[in-house]
Amino acid sequence: MLKTGSEHLRQLRDGRVVYIGAEKVDDVTTHPAFRNAARTVAAIYDMKAADSRFCFKEQDEKYSAYFLRAKTREDLEKRTQLHQAIARMSHGLLGRSPDHVSSFVTGMAMNAPVFGKFEDNLLKYYEHMRREDVYGVYAVIPPQAARNPEFYQKQNLPIPTLRVVREDDDGVVISGMKMLATGAVFANEIWIGNLIPLAPNQLPESITCAIPVNAPGVTLWSRKAYERHAPSEFENPLTWRFDESDSMVMCDEVKVPWEKVFVHMDAVLAREIYIKTPGHCYGNHQSNVRFHAKMRLIVGLASRIAQASGAHEIPAVREVLGRFAALEAALGGMIAGQIQDAEDWPQGWKTFNRRYMYAALNWCTESHSQIIDALRELCGGGIFQMPADISVMHEPKLKAQFEAYWQTPQLGAAERMKLYKLAWDLIGSEFAGRHLQYEKFYAGASFIIRNHNFREAPWDGFHKVVDDLMGSYGIPAH
Amino acid sequence: MLKTGSEHLRQLRDGRVVYIGAEKVDDVTTHPAFRNAARTVAAIYDMKAADSRFCFKEQDEKYSAYFLRAKTREDLEKRTQLHQAIARMSHGLLGRSPDHVSSFVTGMAMNAPVFGKFEDNLLKYYEHMRREDVYGVYAVIPPQAARNPEFYQKQNLPIPTLRVVREDDDGVVISGMKMLATGAVFANEIWIGNLIPLAPNQLPESITCAIPVNAPGVTLWSRKAYERHAPSEFENPLTWRFDESDSMVMCDEVKVPWEKVFVHMDAVLAREIYIKTPGHCYGNHQSNVRFHAKMRLIVGLASRIAQASGAHEIPAVREVLGRFAALEAALGGMIAGQIQDAEDWPQGWKTFNRRYMYAALNWCTESHSQIIDALRELCGGGIFQMPADISVMHEPKLKAQFEAYWQTPQLGAAERMKLYKLAWDLIGSEFAGRHLQYEKFYAGASFIIRNHNFREAPWDGFHKVVDDLMGSYGIPAH
Amino acid sequence: MLKTGSEHLRQLRDGRVVYIGAEKVDDVTTHPAFRNAARTVAAIYDMKAADSRFCFKEQDEKYSAYFLRAKTREDLEKRTQLHQAIARMSHGLLGRSPDHVSSFVTGMAMNAPVFGKFEDNLLKYYEHMRREDVYGVYAVIPPQAARNPEFYQKQNLPIPTLRVVREDDDGVVISGMKMLATGAVFANEIWIGNLIPLAPNQLPESITCAIPVNAPGVTLWSRKAYERHAPSEFENPLTWRFDESDSMVMCDEVKVPWEKVFVHMDAVLAREIYIKTPGHCYGNHQSNVRFHAKMRLIVGLASRIAQASGAHEIPAVREVLGRFAALEAALGGMIAGQIQDAEDWPQGWKTFNRRYMYAALNWCTESHSQIIDALRELCGGGIFQMPADISVMHEPKLKAQFEAYWQTPQLGAAERMKLYKLAWDLIGSEFAGRHLQYEKFYAGASFIIRNHNFREAPWDGFHKVVDDLMGSYGIPAH
Amino acid sequence: MLKTGSEHLRQLRDGRVVYIGAEKVDDVTTHPAFRNAARTVAAIYDMKAADSRFCFKEQDEKYSAYFLRAKTREDLEKRTQLHQAIARMSHGLLGRSPDHVSSFVTGMAMNAPVFGKFEDNLLKYYEHMRREDVYGVYAVIPPQAARNPEFYQKQNLPIPTLRVVREDDDGVVISGMKMLATGAVFANEIWIGNLIPLAPNQLPESITCAIPVNAPGVTLWSRKAYERHAPSEFENPLTWRFDESDSMVMCDEVKVPWEKVFVHMDAVLAREIYIKTPGHCYGNHQSNVRFHAKMRLIVGLASRIAQASGAHEIPAVREVLGRFAALEAALGGMIAGQIQDAEDWPQGWKTFNRRYMYAALNWCTESHSQIIDALRELCGGGIFQMPADISVMHEPKLKAQFEAYWQTPQLGAAERMKLYKLAWDLIGSEFAGRHLQYEKFYAGASFIIRNHNFREAPWDGFHKVVDDLMGSYGIPAH
Repeated sequence: MLKTGSEHLRQLRDGRVVYIGAEKVDDVTTHPAFRNAARTVAAIYDMKAADSRFCFKEQDEKYSAYFLRAKTREDLEKRTQLHQAIARMSHGLLGRSPDHVSSFVTGMAMNAPVFGKFEDNLLKYYEHMRREDVYGVYAVIPPQAARNPEFYQKQNLPIPTLRVVREDDDGVVISGMKMLATGAVFANEIWIGNLIPLAPNQLPESITCAIPVNAPGVTLWSRKAYERHAPSEFENPLTWRFDESDSMVMCDEVKVPWEKVFVHMDAVLAREIYIKTPGHCYGNHQSNVRFHAKMRLIVGLASRIAQASGAHEIPAVREVLGRFAALEAALGGMIAGQIQDAEDWPQGWKTFNRRYMYAALNWCTESHSQIIDALRELCGGGIFQMPADISVMHEPKLKAQFEAYWQTPQLGAAERMKLYKLAWDLIGSEFAGRHLQYEKFYAGASFIIRNHNFREAPWDGFHKVVDDLMGSYGIPAH
Repeated sequence: MLKTGSEHLRQLRDGRVVYIGAEKVDDVTTHPAFRNAARTVAAIYDMKAADSRFCFKEQDEKYSAYFLRAKTREDLEKRTQLHQAIARMSHGLLGRSPDHVSSFVTGMAMNAPVFGKFEDNLLKYYEHMRREDVYGVYAVIPPQAARNPEFYQKQNLPIPTLRVVREDDDGVVISGMKMLATGAVFANEIWIGNLIPLAPNQLPESITCAIPVNAPGVTLWSRKAYERHAPSEFENPLTWRFDESDSMVMCDEVKVPWEKVFVHMDAVLAREIYIKTPGHCYGNHQSNVRFHAKMRLIVGLASRIAQASGAHEIPAVREVLGRFAALEAALGGMIAGQIQDAEDWPQGWKTFNRRYMYAALNWCTESHSQIIDALRELCGGGIFQMPADISVMHEPKLKAQFEAYWQTPQLGAAERMKLYKLAWDLIGSEFAGRHLQYEKFYAGASFIIRNHNFREAPWDGFHKVVDDLMGSYGIPAH
Repeated sequence: MLKTGSEHLRQLRDGRVVYIGAEKVDDVTTHPAFRNAARTVAAIYDMKAADSRFCFKEQDEKYSAYFLRAKTREDLEKRTQLHQAIARMSHGLLGRSPDHVSSFVTGMAMNAPVFGKFEDNLLKYYEHMRREDVYGVYAVIPPQAARNPEFYQKQNLPIPTLRVVREDDDGVVISGMKMLATGAVFANEIWIGNLIPLAPNQLPESITCAIPVNAPGVTLWSRKAYERHAPSEFENPLTWRFDESDSMVMCDEVKVPWEKVFVHMDAVLAREIYIKTPGHCYGNHQSNVRFHAKMRLIVGLASRIAQASGAHEIPAVREVLGRFAALEAALGGMIAGQIQDAEDWPQGWKTFNRRYMYAALNWCTESHSQIIDALRELCGGGIFQMPADISVMHEPKLKAQFEAYWQTPQLGAAERMKLYKLAWDLIGSEFAGRHLQYEKFYAGASFIIRNHNFREAPWDGFHKVVDDLMGSYGIPAH
Repeated sequence: MLKTGSEHLRQLRDGRVVYIGAEKVDDVTTHPAFRNAARTVAAIYDMKAADSRFCFKEQDEKYSAYFLRAKTREDLEKRTQLHQAIARMSHGLLGRSPDHVSSFVTGMAMNAPVFGKFEDNLLKYYEHMRREDVYGVYAVIPPQAARNPEFYQKQNLPIPTLRVVREDDDGVVISGMKMLATGAVFANEIWIGNLIPLAPNQLPESITCAIPVNAPGVTLWSRKAYERHAPSEFENPLTWRFDESDSMVMCDEVKVPWEKVFVHMDAVLAREIYIKTPGHCYGNHQSNVRFHAKMRLIVGLASRIAQASGAHEIPAVREVLGRFAALEAALGGMIAGQIQDAEDWPQGWKTFNRRYMYAALNWCTESHSQIIDALRELCGGGIFQMPADISVMHEPKLKAQFEAYWQTPQLGAAERMKLYKLAWDLIGSEFAGRHLQYEKFYAGASFIIRNHNFREAPWDGFHKVVDDLMGSYGIPAH
């Protein structure tokens, strides 16, 4: 099934419990903190449903292409193409668009035996997701508070991290908190799991399952919603549409039926399901493609900003723009290379090249701050020249002065202000501040990403280079 | 005279014309966009008036120490001490506190003959400032729009940059725009001038003069006022108090009496008054000291953040904290060195070592983004765990959950949130975004700062090192 | 024809005139400054001749794969495969191996009409090169001294840069100097040209032609030959074999027959032949692949060095190794991506994706110094613990002490020393110093590479991203 | 006593046992591997003896100023002045000039009670050093091999690290290896100790003592001596004079009389003597000053190199030079600041500000590689244009060509070559390679330096900044 946007919006009005501070949100599709981002999500569904390139058929059923388990390079290209289309709609500003967790699950469904006795559950969940065109997000990190369980036990307090508190014939009951369910307010279901290794004895915490966002007992605690604080689309065009939301997921005795349980009482497996299947690879390829869309906006902005002051004619500025273009293309190359050097998996499946994918992930994480800083450099100090807001256009006298004094030979006053406000929303607003933090920790602390790179590297091959070289000569004779 | 804070606030209610977008501000001391920062400025006056270390006496009159023209190293230390006290009150977040432009003017008053026929005006203005304890700010950069005067002439439009449009016996009349009068809404007077070289034919633009903020014809166009958008002090403790404001200064036929004119019809002199006097040095020493105060907040925060999660016990994190401390001390050293290697000027005056001052300025400009980025790194992804706002403490059920689930062994929930919100206001809020942009362009584009460093470097000495070395050996014999 | 190594060495004994300082080299294949590198080149020819994957057939003739004009993605892969095989033999330490200039010429032969009246010459030269398996190098930069021709004219001195001094029915006569013919002492022919734009009036300098290294009037002035100064292979295993040589080419009335002339009296075309054909792309793809081979040695060494002290078990070191692996894979991805997103050219030719290629070139140039610096970091201060040379193994008493005191649980003394010496030859020796300089200026100053990236970027597309976004909303109503 | 240079050279002919590989060096003052550096050291003694500013008097005896225990700021200035004079003679290329270890010992003599029962020994050793004008170096790091003592015990091999193997009434007997006695071949005595913390049970290794370089049983194993491989002073002017040497110190049953023992059987104290006295501070202040002298050479060279091609007239290059000057001045400021904010110690002693000193140490270590890389950038690719050596000037025909073709309007051919060779010796030669490694590990791995910075930071003060700020507001009312 391919949902339309309005169908998806309808699904969001399901009684879910969302708090912004102490305020309870009645309807996320109309609330001023979420409505525009909700519309952005809906537009993704409409775009996807309208274009046959973005779906595939199996047994006469049409599914979104991000549920495609690839058998050929063309299949991989098809996946990438849809990721790209989605990412470009949001300029890479939605980290957890509907294709992210779907890709994880699709990848896991390519090596389901890893799940042991829950293999069938996983496969059925995959079927369910693609059939219903489910928008899944995930909460796979324990809250910081969870690191010292003894502390809570001593005080007779509940251990804050989400865990199974009870099981019975029908399923398990979970309670506790999990972070950071980005996009959850706009999604249908939340995948609960553990991307970070658990201690061997954290068995109840190893629960991996899926729950509807509106499941009884589930509460979302949203971080500050920037959309609500954007004075207008003109002032904050990105905040306005693309604030994807982050929420803590609080579960209070939430019942999960067995068929939605994928890992239980197995601390090692809880993490391996991502690594020993193409799950992590499919999901993070999406993230590479998403970041690439952001790079396109950044490079375009860099050039437009330079043109707005005529600076693009200065050789040193042209060099800077050339470097921006080089960075965009570098990532483009790393993504295309993942298809060129695709990996074969058992059963004839194909995945993107995992080493290139992790390398790109490392590159994005390492580079984002300095790329934004380079854009700051181009924007200059003049960014604060602009009036507080565009309401000046509504007062004739101010409007006249504004238009006369703020225009340049390159741009009219209002257009200049519009451009600078857009740039500011990428480098200086609170929305921008969240992105600076978010990209840095997109996939966890830097050591986590580098450990992925370490794990997948062909060390024997690298060592052989050195050993063969050293083996080809000895200690010289006297 | 040493003003008190309340006297200063009273002075700000003087009919000044300030716009935030199309909204006209009636009273900057009570308006929600400015009132807290106004109070911060007032507190500086109270602090200064209450402590005899922060003033000096001349002919039985007491003046603020930042008006002291130094004759000894102790005098320099006295200046630094007051800069420090002011900067620490605002954690270095006020770039244009009352001691900045005052220091410029004081420095200029140490080599007033540079001003030629206006020498006396300058000296009297210095007397006036210190006697009245004037808070001066400046607007010394042309708006970006001003770069192509032909463009406006062709359209029969006023050239946007501020210039003399008429002169008569009483003085000159100026019209046009000048940027970026940081702090102007809280100040008494604006120094109009040109820190960036003018073209030789920009004679009317060379005007350098002082005008009261409430002079007829003066309008301030404020950028977005962040203070107003801070939900509470708890959410944005820095935005709340330390948003110093930036304004475009628009002059419409503003009359300036001759005695407040310091340069007129001299494009070269307009810039040289800062460089050929200790003006630039005194003013920017303040800026070094101010940044140093910010470093102290950053280093303290880095450590408290690390402690909040127990991370400070990890050797790699301790190394990071050690590096933060090293950076703080590096700047401390560069500042102290300016006194140790103070420069002698004619008439027995003393200035801070200019090369060290410019080096520190370069260091601050180059380093700020990465220092903040390092703080981001320490804060981690968990910064988005926090509820949208602290209103959760007012709903008993939410409060109970919040306190139980968000606390850690290191900190209670509300304290943790308070700490993270404070950090966020330094790394992620729009106020933080403005600081990232501001510090990078504090003294203009990087090439401007490096050119100061180039100009003051003892190239003959450096060349001699190379030449002497090379002169000590020749081409070896056959 | 596929030459063997010994055939190639025989060709090098052709009376070529090579100077090392004032010393004239009789035979580059036996001279202690060049003999080992000559052998390395010969080994490339042997390797290539022995493996059918590395050649292709056209009209029953076998040619080296780097002469293949690609029509399919598989053709591109075939090219890459041979570049890789060559680069791995020399660990990427030969910048101008036989596949570099050959690739330039092959690329130019895919769009020969650009050459105008010399089109046929170019095609015949391409035929000649592949038929004779010619090792071509190039000299395509004017000497620094050439920038101010007036200076020399005033003194009645020859203008130093190479130029046509005379032409007649048989061809042209060239005189002057050109840099930097890396590899020339080991090559058959030198391509003379201009990679950097000429001034419009530099017509005689626009000459683009090919000359045999032993042409009468040609002298090579070698830079210091590091190979000669390597005490032994054990001390400097890389210097020993891989010092590819750099030479200034001095031409004194060298006659060039018309059929070897490709551009004449056309300052613009002299440069465009590289850019308007796949020449620059084919040539620099080789350079990407070459650098990648170096990365493999670097990553292997990094790991072996870490293991030698047991440091590889420290998490922070593992993270560093993971980052090294990420960098290697990033470049790998950028190279593979060039095939995935190959470009179509007229006549059904295919080239590597040029934007990814230039992006990779920029990445290599930007990253090399810091990659080597990271390797330095891993090597630690202990690198100077090693005895001056391995001769200690020939004195029984020293040997005993050396083996007892320098061994570690991880490695025996001599093996440790061997490993450190190898690392040193990549990070610290004069050979290493040359590589640090060479990679930085491999393709000219950084602005040249960034300008390539600027030139090939799809600015319309990038601008459209911004314009469409900005076009989707306007000034909000009152 | 103030030694002359020739007296010092005479002292070096004392039967010391030095090996370069398997070659035994008879006389370090005449051996081609050491003679020029020996002369450089001698010149320091002559310079010092000839200038009364560089000594101080106590009880009518004259001592070198680096033995001065400071009581006043002027005393500190006197110390700095001599460090500067020495460092400028060698352009900061001698890390362990005679003022380094002397400063350590002088600093320790300012808080000798720390040494407990060996207090008197330390004070007498200080007296001895200054009276005899002793050139001391040190070996204070265990060889890498020493980390796993069990490994050697299991094999019945001597544990490689230096330790006390026996003690009797006269003193202790030490055996084993210690690194890295930079400068030892030119010194009189070696201080044996432990700058890095020992494990609590490493009691025999805790020995801290002084031994003459020619003590029976002491052998120095030199690393490769670069001086010997420098073809001429013209080719490698820095290698020629300033290769200070690094040696492993091998002790085979070396007898140390009790009066030269300073720590024994105390693993904690072995390290604390540096930290709990001004020793570490005095010693590393010298290192700051030394690096500063190097900066002066670097900045001078950067400018001369830019001038050699006329590049200094390009604004972007001028900005680069301005940045070089800023870096030089930044360090200058950090050094001067150490005097301005000098610290008081018990008994009226004064030390340089330790936090600024450690900050400067961190700055030098962090910055050196990139500073050299920036110099590489300025040198460009043209550095390989130069002939292999200057012998071309001895062949008339080559000389004529060289002078005609290699000259530029800015410089004659031989002068240009001389300048580039000098630059190369700082950025590209093996001597340069050693400096790149050496500065990075000058004071140990980066975490060691940052831990010094951590240890000395006033955390209470930094925390107070945060705590006071946070204490000034609470949770807002409902």
